[in-house]
Amino acid sequence: MIITFKKDAPVKEIQELVSILENSGIKIADASSENLGLFGLIGDTSVVDIDKIQAYSWVIEVTRITVPYKKASRQFHPMDTIVDVCGIKIGGSEKVVIIGGPCSVESVEQIDEIAQGVKAAGAVLLRGGAYKPRTSPYVFQGLETEGINILKKAKSKYGLPIVSEIMSVEKIDEFVENVDVIQIGARNMQNFDLLKKVGKTNKPILLKRGLSNTIQEWLMSAEYILANGNPNVILCERGIRTFETLTRNTLDLSVISIVKKLSHLPIVIDPSHATGHWELVETISLASIVAGCDGLIVEVHNNPEKALSDGQQSLKIEKFKTLVEKSRKLAQFIGRDI
Amino acid sequence: MIITFKKDAPVKEIQELVSILENSGIKIADASSENLGLFGLIGDTSVVDIDKIQAYSWVIEVTRITVPYKKASRQFHPMDTIVDVCGIKIGGSEKVVIIGGPCSVESVEQIDEIAQGVKAAGAVLLRGGAYKPRTSPYVFQGLETEGINILKKAKSKYGLPIVSEIMSVEKIDEFVENVDVIQIGARNMQNFDLLKKVGKTNKPILLKRGLSNTIQEWLMSAEYILANGNPNVILCERGIRTFETLTRNTLDLSVISIVKKLSHLPIVIDPSHATGHWELVETISLASIVAGCDGLIVEVHNNPEKALSDGQQSLKIEKFKTLVEKSRKLAQFIGRDI
Amino acid sequence: MIITFKKDAPVKEIQELVSILENSGIKIADASSENLGLFGLIGDTSVVDIDKIQAYSWVIEVTRITVPYKKASRQFHPMDTIVDVCGIKIGGSEKVVIIGGPCSVESVEQIDEIAQGVKAAGAVLLRGGAYKPRTSPYVFQGLETEGINILKKAKSKYGLPIVSEIMSVEKIDEFVENVDVIQIGARNMQNFDLLKKVGKTNKPILLKRGLSNTIQEWLMSAEYILANGNPNVILCERGIRTFETLTRNTLDLSVISIVKKLSHLPIVIDPSHATGHWELVETISLASIVAGCDGLIVEVHNNPEKALSDGQQSLKIEKFKTLVEKSRKLAQFIGRDI
Amino acid sequence: MIITFKKDAPVKEIQELVSILENSGIKIADASSENLGLFGLIGDTSVVDIDKIQAYSWVIEVTRITVPYKKASRQFHPMDTIVDVCGIKIGGSEKVVIIGGPCSVESVEQIDEIAQGVKAAGAVLLRGGAYKPRTSPYVFQGLETEGINILKKAKSKYGLPIVSEIMSVEKIDEFVENVDVIQIGARNMQNFDLLKKVGKTNKPILLKRGLSNTIQEWLMSAEYILANGNPNVILCERGIRTFETLTRNTLDLSVISIVKKLSHLPIVIDPSHATGHWELVETISLASIVAGCDGLIVEVHNNPEKALSDGQQSLKIEKFKTLVEKSRKLAQFIGRDI
Repeated sequence: MIITFKKDAPVKEIQELVSILENSGIKIADASSENLGLFGLIGDTSVVDIDKIQAYSWVIEVTRITVPYKKASRQFHPMDTIVDVCGIKIGGSEKVVIIGGPCSVESVEQIDEIAQGVKAAGAVLLRGGAYKPRTSPYVFQGLETEGINILKKAKSKYGLPIVSEIMSVEKIDEFVENVDVIQIGARNMQNFDLLKKVGKTNKPILLKRGLSNTIQEWLMSAEYILANGNPNVILCERGIRTFETLTRNTLDLSVISIVKKLSHLPIVIDPSHATGHWELVETISLASIVAGCDGLIVEVHNNPEKALSDGQQSLKIEKFKTLVEKSRKLAQFIGRDI
Repeated sequence: MIITFKKDAPVKEIQELVSILENSGIKIADASSENLGLFGLIGDTSVVDIDKIQAYSWVIEVTRITVPYKKASRQFHPMDTIVDVCGIKIGGSEKVVIIGGPCSVESVEQIDEIAQGVKAAGAVLLRGGAYKPRTSPYVFQGLETEGINILKKAKSKYGLPIVSEIMSVEKIDEFVENVDVIQIGARNMQNFDLLKKVGKTNKPILLKRGLSNTIQEWLMSAEYILANGNPNVILCERGIRTFETLTRNTLDLSVISIVKKLSHLPIVIDPSHATGHWELVETISLASIVAGCDGLIVEVHNNPEKALSDGQQSLKIEKFKTLVEKSRKLAQFIGRDI
Repeated sequence: MIITFKKDAPVKEIQELVSILENSGIKIADASSENLGLFGLIGDTSVVDIDKIQAYSWVIEVTRITVPYKKASRQFHPMDTIVDVCGIKIGGSEKVVIIGGPCSVESVEQIDEIAQGVKAAGAVLLRGGAYKPRTSPYVFQGLETEGINILKKAKSKYGLPIVSEIMSVEKIDEFVENVDVIQIGARNMQNFDLLKKVGKTNKPILLKRGLSNTIQEWLMSAEYILANGNPNVILCERGIRTFETLTRNTLDLSVISIVKKLSHLPIVIDPSHATGHWELVETISLASIVAGCDGLIVEVHNNPEKALSDGQQSLKIEKFKTLVEKSRKLAQFIGRDI
Repeated sequence: MIITFKKDAPVKEIQELVSILENSGIKIADASSENLGLFGLIGDTSVVDIDKIQAYSWVIEVTRITVPYKKASRQFHPMDTIVDVCGIKIGGSEKVVIIGGPCSVESVEQIDEIAQGVKAAGAVLLRGGAYKPRTSPYVFQGLETEGINILKKAKSKYGLPIVSEIMSVEKIDEFVENVDVIQIGARNMQNFDLLKKVGKTNKPILLKRGLSNTIQEWLMSAEYILANGNPNVILCERGIRTFETLTRNTLDLSVISIVKKLSHLPIVIDPSHATGHWELVETISLASIVAGCDGLIVEVHNNPEKALSDGQQSLKIEKFKTLVEKSRKLAQFIGRDI
């Protein structure tokens, strides 16, 4: 970290800042010149609160050289993290994991038909929302506990571990007990209390990137989970908000390479939310595999026209089967597998 | 609401859609022409889930004519909502309410000095964060319950009702009991569980706009609170994320007129987060008063250089006093008061 | 196009609007109900100026059902456009065209070495900027006419047609005479005078998408060129501006499928500007091929560290060779070739 | 400017960089520590091309401390620039200048009626577009030279100097001869050739901010004009593109204070484009005056419903009169005048 400051800064305040930093274990290299004050900070600067330094009126700029996350950084953890979900490995360079299922759990029959379908197609995890974040209070909000129970039934029948979104710290116990991967949705990426709570469990956490968040903010949210003791974080890119209106969101594909360079955590892609249209899902999925993702989480419905949510972006089971087949061939072509 | 669709759509599916809509109490005016199917939907379309209609492959487009929020809409509630906070009225066309205080509660002495200062300057509510949403898990996270108690002490000594941010549904009871205005932060604007919970209380809620959210999404979040029974919602614009880097956020000033037209809810402006720099706070505050805001919520610190958070955007007590004086004169000039 | 309007609109003004529309050859289907006025517009609505309709105070909303571009639309031109550049075909479903070269033309030796290198690697066109749009007036602005001459020399020596960016209508003659593909840069996507001028030539035009423009705006810019008589438009996605700071821009990969659906024009990807970092270029290139792009335009430099512009995002010749090899294998895998 | 770099960088390349910088007149303060290379650059760093430094693979980061524009910077020109337009002063702290007129020049009668109206209301300059940047090639593109002549007639009759937008370098002579303030539109803010050309005249230039451009990019475009010899630049904020759809653009109000701090150039606000709705124009205008703008450029039409462009955001003459009256009172209240 580098602090530049005006040469006419009050000596007393400079000394104060220096002693605050030194008390945090930071060493300071003074590199001031005639016209410009300049401190290089050496040590673990992730504990330094930039805001506090910038509050001094004589500070010109504070620039980070090292990243503010430590446990999420590949620098301190060079090997890929591989998250184990009931024996299924997410991360590493071998398998690309396929997760399929509906946006919302709607009924026993719906989940049974979809679970059977995605299993047969090659999915190894089942996704389904029991608690749904909806922008309107007047539309379907999910089956809640009943939905979780329906997913469990399908899990025991088809042997598919389940991924489901948590929306509230109050439901932590229910999720820890019943769900195999706890999903944190895009709108909760900076719900820090929820991050702390899931960080105190040892469940795999699928952390979606927020709609307008930077990669660094996303890794800082992962850091919240890791810092609270849970190493099982799976990142999930699901598109960011842009000015384009023909797609629901815009997939940031570079994110895969960047995350792989900066962090050791696995990353999966959600092509359904990234586009908002089922016609685009296959193409985006294949491109993501080539770009190096560790998995795909795809919305699949037995009857998209009657889906209680997100029908427009859900694949029919038959189309999903084709997608998995093409994905497998492509994964094998680039030296991985499904 | 208008649905346009292809003329070769399967009759059975059209009939199905029609009967779903009619069962929701919607009347349908069929205005199809030779080349284009077109339904006009008449009735309370706020209950209609657009996603479900768009999931039919033959639907071309669904366009809302009326807004999807009902209780937040001025159409159904022409009179201004005036929220009463311990006798202080927020909303209506008379007073512009001034709220001042630090970003974070840090100590008894700090709050005492600031509360005394902002009270003397003309503020009628005291703000202060006891639970802090911070992007890094390694920096100060707030004094929590101790912070709330410090605020209560200042409230009883100076007669200033308190505004503080809630971050988790688990703390609802603590906030209902101790805080006068419960703030929902920008990052929690779409934390729907939290919205439902504060909607079940009758406390005044200060609902900040999300960093990249549209006005309609914001009013839908207000609708969550209203629909759960709590009419005491105060909207708060605090700037949105843009490509500009010289300010922390960009204040969307048009929002005041638009919200006043679309909704009956009061709106206050947070010039501190909107800019991120104390030098800009006064100008933005005065412009907001001219634009018709019902209040200002301003970060004030007795010693910004040593603030544990957001020191860069906090006014010193003396500067805050000047701001209130100028604001009062300007409010009087435009026929309001402070 | 659908116009909704208030039922209490002045009859005279409605009649006026109707006759304006009918005079443009539009047929109107009146589908008004008791509460809402509603006109369906049938015919070529690309000539209708939405702004003028919305200017009536009683108009509620104007919604397009058909696209405002006609010549760029696949609806009116179902077959793929294949642009012929000196015998090289861009578009269609066979070849993926590789374009390589430096950001700026710097010297005879530089271009000679790079042209030889990219040719050997498998590129079929040479790119190079002679006129450079730079944000600062104080940095290298290009060799101008000398740069064009250097490119021509390389063309005649290595048989590589050249792509170069035009910045001003004043240079049209120079470009028509000397350049094989005229590039319109992202910052000039809505320089309508320049679009009209290149539309009056019959040269192939590479039209880059603007930094914050939607796909529809981009196709409208293509429409300017087509409407002026030049059918030889190649679209080029080069990333859009987002809040992410780790990449120079964010590649919008869905754009390929969407453009292919909406339009018949070929589309190439610029992975260098889309990312801003040479390490990301290969991955993004391969993903783009899988996503169906018709070509890649890649920055290549013999000595990136000493490039006069964009060195950070330029591939060395050796790396470019690897990229083309991998691209060829992947293209063949998906049934195309290079 | 500060360059940080890896300690294992090749000595030869470091020496090369050092000598390049020193040859540009830059002095280098070496402040490297054990773990990190660090150079402080002293001197006129506006000539340094950051891209070229970042192209060295061993460079970690390059950070500007001083701004890259020099002539536009208040640092090197502490006094306010006051641009003289036929005797009317724009800039300084006295007058707020009112510019009114239609989006497009449509006919002699239209301009005559509007010019008379805005003059009577208190405007001192007349705006009107003769060349129109339209997203569709199929809608009205302006009366071109005829439009300019109509404006000149109104100028000579009412004594109002005229502001009109140039779209092409080819029209420079026409504009220099006939127009008093040459407007560069938002879409041409980075049309560097056009900037250079108007920089070679001595006409007042109204430079609009681009739709998604930062303040620094905007000042760099001003720098292009200043560096070419023309000191008469007036900045114009007209709103930036955001995710909000209820307004055409979002006015960035902080821009006024920031520009006044960073630069000596005058700044006017365009409340018509900033909002896109005439109902919002008055509020935004008044807020802008309080925020310190040096002028307003407002769209006014004698018959907005029949305007050939932008009718929705144009004020009727009567409303414009009210706006000027309120603006005058407010300007006087804050110690300025109109």
